[in-house]
Amino acid sequence: PEFRMTLLWPITDTKFLMDETKRLSSITIETGTTKPCIKVLDQLLLPHQKQYIEIKNVDTAVTVIKNMQVRGAPLIASVAVFGICMESFENAGTNFTKTFLEGAIKRLIDTRPTAVCIHNVLNRLLKETAGLDDIRLIEAVRGFAFKEVIDEARDNRQLCWNGVQTISALQRKNSDGFTIMTICNTGSLATTSWGTALGIISGLRDQKMLRRVICLETRPYNQGSRLTATELSHQGIEFKLICDSMAAFSVNVFDVDAVIVGADRVVANGDTANKVGTYNLAIVAKHFSVPFFVALNYDAFDFKTEEGNSIDIEERKDDEMRYFNGGLICEPKTPVFNPAFDVTKAELITGYISERGFHTALGLQQLRIDAFLENRT
Amino acid sequence: PEFRMTLLWPITDTKFLMDETKRLSSITIETGTTKPCIKVLDQLLLPHQKQYIEIKNVDTAVTVIKNMQVRGAPLIASVAVFGICMESFENAGTNFTKTFLEGAIKRLIDTRPTAVCIHNVLNRLLKETAGLDDIRLIEAVRGFAFKEVIDEARDNRQLCWNGVQTISALQRKNSDGFTIMTICNTGSLATTSWGTALGIISGLRDQKMLRRVICLETRPYNQGSRLTATELSHQGIEFKLICDSMAAFSVNVFDVDAVIVGADRVVANGDTANKVGTYNLAIVAKHFSVPFFVALNYDAFDFKTEEGNSIDIEERKDDEMRYFNGGLICEPKTPVFNPAFDVTKAELITGYISERGFHTALGLQQLRIDAFLENRT
Repeated sequence: PEFRMTLLWPITDTKFLMDETKRLSSITIETGTTKPCIKVLDQLLLPHQKQYIEIKNVDTAVTVIKNMQVRGAPLIASVAVFGICMESFENAGTNFTKTFLEGAIKRLIDTRPTAVCIHNVLNRLLKETAGLDDIRLIEAVRGFAFKEVIDEARDNRQLCWNGVQTISALQRKNSDGFTIMTICNTGSLATTSWGTALGIISGLRDQKMLRRVICLETRPYNQGSRLTATELSHQGIEFKLICDSMAAFSVNVFDVDAVIVGADRVVANGDTANKVGTYNLAIVAKHFSVPFFVALNYDAFDFKTEEGNSIDIEERKDDEMRYFNGGLICEPKTPVFNPAFDVTKAELITGYISERGFHTALGLQQLRIDAFLENRT
Repeated sequence: PEFRMTLLWPITDTKFLMDETKRLSSITIETGTTKPCIKVLDQLLLPHQKQYIEIKNVDTAVTVIKNMQVRGAPLIASVAVFGICMESFENAGTNFTKTFLEGAIKRLIDTRPTAVCIHNVLNRLLKETAGLDDIRLIEAVRGFAFKEVIDEARDNRQLCWNGVQTISALQRKNSDGFTIMTICNTGSLATTSWGTALGIISGLRDQKMLRRVICLETRPYNQGSRLTATELSHQGIEFKLICDSMAAFSVNVFDVDAVIVGADRVVANGDTANKVGTYNLAIVAKHFSVPFFVALNYDAFDFKTEEGNSIDIEERKDDEMRYFNGGLICEPKTPVFNPAFDVTKAELITGYISERGFHTALGLQQLRIDAFLENRT
């Protein structure tokens, strides 16, 4: 069947437009008259090379996800969906059947068994295409892929805008704009859009309200120095890269106005699991009375878990801390503790910013009730 | 003249004996019937190789200091003094004159112009040998070198003992001993003896009061993973290496009883300049009500400076943060902030431990008066 997708990229249906030319895209989506062209940035080569890989079918999607050439839960899910979408062009009318789809979904989910996002999205695709004949199946798969990324872009714009509104309500320390501190990578390299904490930072820059960003390097994986610094520099944002241990000293030196971080999971009482180091940073922010915000997609709220102590914290392999840049940084058998995340207590968090608005820890109770009612209807 | 040094190493004149066989010595001093033999551990090869270099004369001392094969202010001063001492054996009776001594001292001081310790010690040597003839000069130089290291050992034993007393007064969280968190390297690799914070930790182990050490890797130079972890493992002490950003999470996970750190300088009001990251760690300790101690040689008190804001903080080269283990960890021109030290406010510090005792910030005022009176008499 002919490709009749008419949706455009970038989205132009919100009042809050950000300059797409400035974004370091983790994925490029070109729609043509015959078929779209999907490419992903090879993140293994960052920050030294910016090279894109075309996603032609399920095989290439599986490969880039397995090789960690793309990372970030929302991005992985999108790449998986587009792998299936592009397979429908490569194999259209021959063997793109329901059976093939089910096999492809299984292969894609198996790439990263612990990632819940890819699991949810692909299961939804399976559900939405149930009972369709092969021709309609292809239409549905394509529609699903583009709707996913468009919904994400719309929600992300709203999140960024909500963040800009929240930050602009603060008293700034300097007339030339806000200084924001952040940790890890929460930008366009982790999603198909602008990102959460880093998305808000990009929004502030677009609104000419940003003075400078202080970017923590984020040991042991250095997502700050490898990814966030690269995004900031690509966007032409003024920033300083610091070691995680320099946060306290830097809050004073750079007159930091606010800290914004992302979240892997926010539970019912507001406790927040995020990249290890977030808890340290929240304590430092509290000490200096600097507002500390958590920015997250509404999907990352987990109202079924009551409080942070119930969150299992994944410990990573010892060698991932012992080796750095290909070399040992300690004796080979050094005993290490290497948690991937920590849990920041709600009492340290000024508020939460999602596409649904700005929420205090108390306000999360209303969100929780809303979620309950939404599921009932 | 014949070598008649009869002082012994290790020292056996204090009640508080630590097992010298367990110490990873940065310097070995063997006294023989003809002449001593001085060797220093090549710290550039740590943690991968333990190789000693003999200090035969002033030239070898200058080389190892310039090459950073030895580091740590007290250790550098000792190596300089022993370079001169050994030169007195190599050149005895020929050209070891007052003029030679003055030239050697100048060369040694010039190796690390900002280190104040080497400066003070060598100037004292110059003062104490003023007016001596060449034969007496040689005796005096040798006596000075050994007296320095013996005084340091005695003072250090006292410091460690004071620390053990201080910590043992705390309520421990677990019956099997104290869990101590520390940053940077403050052990035998920075001094000729057991060290300050790490010396106290070794003392606790000797007294069977130590459960475990939590060692921060100490970015950007990783003195924690390269040096402290190596010393702990050499001593057979149970420990965990963590990233600096994991301190908050680890305080809870490991039931930390106290944090002990070293100091580059403690000023009159108790504000403390130390390796960057110390301020962060002190804020985290305060948040969890974990006692935070600064251990230092009495020499590191600077009563002439009133408060921490007056301390100039050295910024290191950008590339020292951008490169790690020989490779770039960010884009080559990434703007970075790379302070070597930070200043921890006195209000965050439970107390100070020196060879003179345990002092609160208020108690420093008495020390300051004592110092004033000592200089007058």
